[in-house]
Amino acid sequence: MEVYALKGNICYSLDKDELSIHENSYVICENGVCAGVYPDLPEDYRGIACTDYGSRLIIPGFTDLHVHAPQYAFRGLGMDLELLEWLEGHAFVEEQRYSDLNYAKRAYEIFTEDLVKSATTRACIFGTVHTEATLLLMELLEKAGFKACVGRVNMDRNCPEGLCETDALKAAQDTERWIARCQEFQQVKPILTPRFIPACSDELMRRLSELQKRYGLPVQSHLSENQAEIAWVMELCPETACYGAAYDGYGMFGKGSPAIMAHCVHSGEEEIGLMKGRKLFVAHCPESNANLSSGIAPVRTFLDEGIKVGLGSDIAAGSGLSVFRAMALAVQCSKLKWRIEDGNLKPLKFSEVFYMATRGGGEFFGNVGCFEKGYEFDALVINDTDLRSPGELTVRKRLERLMYLAEDKHIAAKYICGRKIF
Amino acid sequence: MEVYALKGNICYSLDKDELSIHENSYVICENGVCAGVYPDLPEDYRGIACTDYGSRLIIPGFTDLHVHAPQYAFRGLGMDLELLEWLEGHAFVEEQRYSDLNYAKRAYEIFTEDLVKSATTRACIFGTVHTEATLLLMELLEKAGFKACVGRVNMDRNCPEGLCETDALKAAQDTERWIARCQEFQQVKPILTPRFIPACSDELMRRLSELQKRYGLPVQSHLSENQAEIAWVMELCPETACYGAAYDGYGMFGKGSPAIMAHCVHSGEEEIGLMKGRKLFVAHCPESNANLSSGIAPVRTFLDEGIKVGLGSDIAAGSGLSVFRAMALAVQCSKLKWRIEDGNLKPLKFSEVFYMATRGGGEFFGNVGCFEKGYEFDALVINDTDLRSPGELTVRKRLERLMYLAEDKHIAAKYICGRKIF
Repeated sequence: MEVYALKGNICYSLDKDELSIHENSYVICENGVCAGVYPDLPEDYRGIACTDYGSRLIIPGFTDLHVHAPQYAFRGLGMDLELLEWLEGHAFVEEQRYSDLNYAKRAYEIFTEDLVKSATTRACIFGTVHTEATLLLMELLEKAGFKACVGRVNMDRNCPEGLCETDALKAAQDTERWIARCQEFQQVKPILTPRFIPACSDELMRRLSELQKRYGLPVQSHLSENQAEIAWVMELCPETACYGAAYDGYGMFGKGSPAIMAHCVHSGEEEIGLMKGRKLFVAHCPESNANLSSGIAPVRTFLDEGIKVGLGSDIAAGSGLSVFRAMALAVQCSKLKWRIEDGNLKPLKFSEVFYMATRGGGEFFGNVGCFEKGYEFDALVINDTDLRSPGELTVRKRLERLMYLAEDKHIAAKYICGRKIF
Repeated sequence: MEVYALKGNICYSLDKDELSIHENSYVICENGVCAGVYPDLPEDYRGIACTDYGSRLIIPGFTDLHVHAPQYAFRGLGMDLELLEWLEGHAFVEEQRYSDLNYAKRAYEIFTEDLVKSATTRACIFGTVHTEATLLLMELLEKAGFKACVGRVNMDRNCPEGLCETDALKAAQDTERWIARCQEFQQVKPILTPRFIPACSDELMRRLSELQKRYGLPVQSHLSENQAEIAWVMELCPETACYGAAYDGYGMFGKGSPAIMAHCVHSGEEEIGLMKGRKLFVAHCPESNANLSSGIAPVRTFLDEGIKVGLGSDIAAGSGLSVFRAMALAVQCSKLKWRIEDGNLKPLKFSEVFYMATRGGGEFFGNVGCFEKGYEFDALVINDTDLRSPGELTVRKRLERLMYLAEDKHIAAKYICGRKIF
């Protein structure tokens, strides 16, 4: 039974439109779970350990709903191509290196160490098709105290030999063995990860669908990122009504188990109709969608339709791990979409992207992303004293500008499930 | 006579398309001017002082062609409005505070200290309408070793009382007195700064135009940022063919003295025609143009037409001072424009935005922005060792990813006109 309190300026989302701000207050963590926020320590908690963070901000940790760990090695590079050419020319080239476990160790240590320093406390992560390298990544994340879902990627067509599973049956067996070996981890869990429809044969999808039902696993994949990709899917699956329906046909679209679909830049009415009322999370990755010239996702529509939306860094089509930056770009891109493309889709507000970064994506992990009673205790302590101003700023304003100005150095402390990471 | 060399991996633009990369080479500074880049120290320079920066990158300093120093106080805040409402609700409110010299001192010290830490070595800066505060800013910049053009802002209509010059004659006299007092500075120079047409009466423009001719001053202002602004200009100046022509009518459009026009998001054919072949610099401010929902400037067209383009942070419609970030956003926004708005305008490449950040904007200051012989010696030494990678990266790749990943902490040393700033 471990109970402690943090004291500071506590901020979290009540809902998409409203922030809850508690100045000079206490947030209590009891066995890794939030026991509420109080202006003074309640009677029952008198005498518990308390860290006083003074005027620092205490906010929920961020969830990164979409990140490719092996691609971190070439972050910030190779942004001169669109999706399909980029996969061929950059992503697939790098991912083949992870058959070498020494290389994988070097690369995943760097990824994990940098993720620890970042504002991210939860992540849904793509590995590669390599079982050993993916288990190594999971081990590193577990040791670092991370909560994450990690996927051994499945792909058996339209990809280079070094990444291509040649036999759908064997692919499913390999995946099942990987799932079994994931039992050793407490905090890091497996997630079924068909790369995307163009790289997964019907038979592979069928077999993965069986695994999904057998183990009740969540799914992560890509959806409607790029027009050429969509056209290719319609060609590969002539009977499908839309790209999303191709996943739905295999029960991998959030009807039973939760599913994360990254991008959804070009999701039309029919696809959006399929998404509604499901355990389906859109991973909105605005930087990636700009870098690969994909476009700007209709996030306003997703929110209006009640579809769950979180943010993704999408390393390495996105360049950095910062979810703060994803928040800023989500707002900025929504403004450009409103100005240039569709005047009906009102720009996103700060409160909305802060919600996406915390509760929106956090919901994928359960009660995660705020300091209400019963939520798992993921927290960031932010020291913004070097962001100087000639006048006084309210806590709300200090929080808002972080979206644009926060760097890793501003994170003074980080807690995941009540455990202090640094 | 001060001569020294820096050793490291030296990179600069030859032109918009080509980078010049010299690994483990020497760049020589002679009395503040570059004396060339050499693989070994030439005979004539044997024995000069040399700082060996090992495998660090040495690149030209960046020019920020458009930044409002007084607005730095609310950077990252108030991004919920479009231009005209934002000016009224945020910018003008803050700028009125600079009548108080104590406030100005606090604010401008913060601005100057942060600018010193940034990658910027040259800047064209808006102050406020207040002479004393503007001189104080210039003094701080001069003391910090900065090369900059700073403008005391002129505005005599459509603005709040605290900022409004009530008499065009007096405004011109005040400006002339300010120009005289600027003689005390060696590195920081005055630039004529009519805020923008909506805030400057015809008489004020006429009188400023006289000052410009008398003193041969450069000019900085705003152009075609926002549709409502443009409509307003056409209403205020019914006889003008386009917004740019309103400046041109007073000789403030780069025909005699150089002029910087910030934004140019909605410049049409006629305006672009006016810009061509002039000493006119477009200050492209992609973050600002996203934050205020202005749109995306047709930079590809400007480049194709041979118009000079540099980058601007446009604090505080832009949130931060980083010209690296302006480079990344310039590329990203150009991709979105190409995808969404105009498939004829090909996205900007890394080499092009690096050119804009260095030689493009630097040209406003003369021979500035590269390490060719005769160029003024502005240099940044970049330590990117914490951007770890499992494999080796070429110097070119290390340079390219900085566009996305560089933060102030990566700047290991900074030189302006040969003087080491840190």
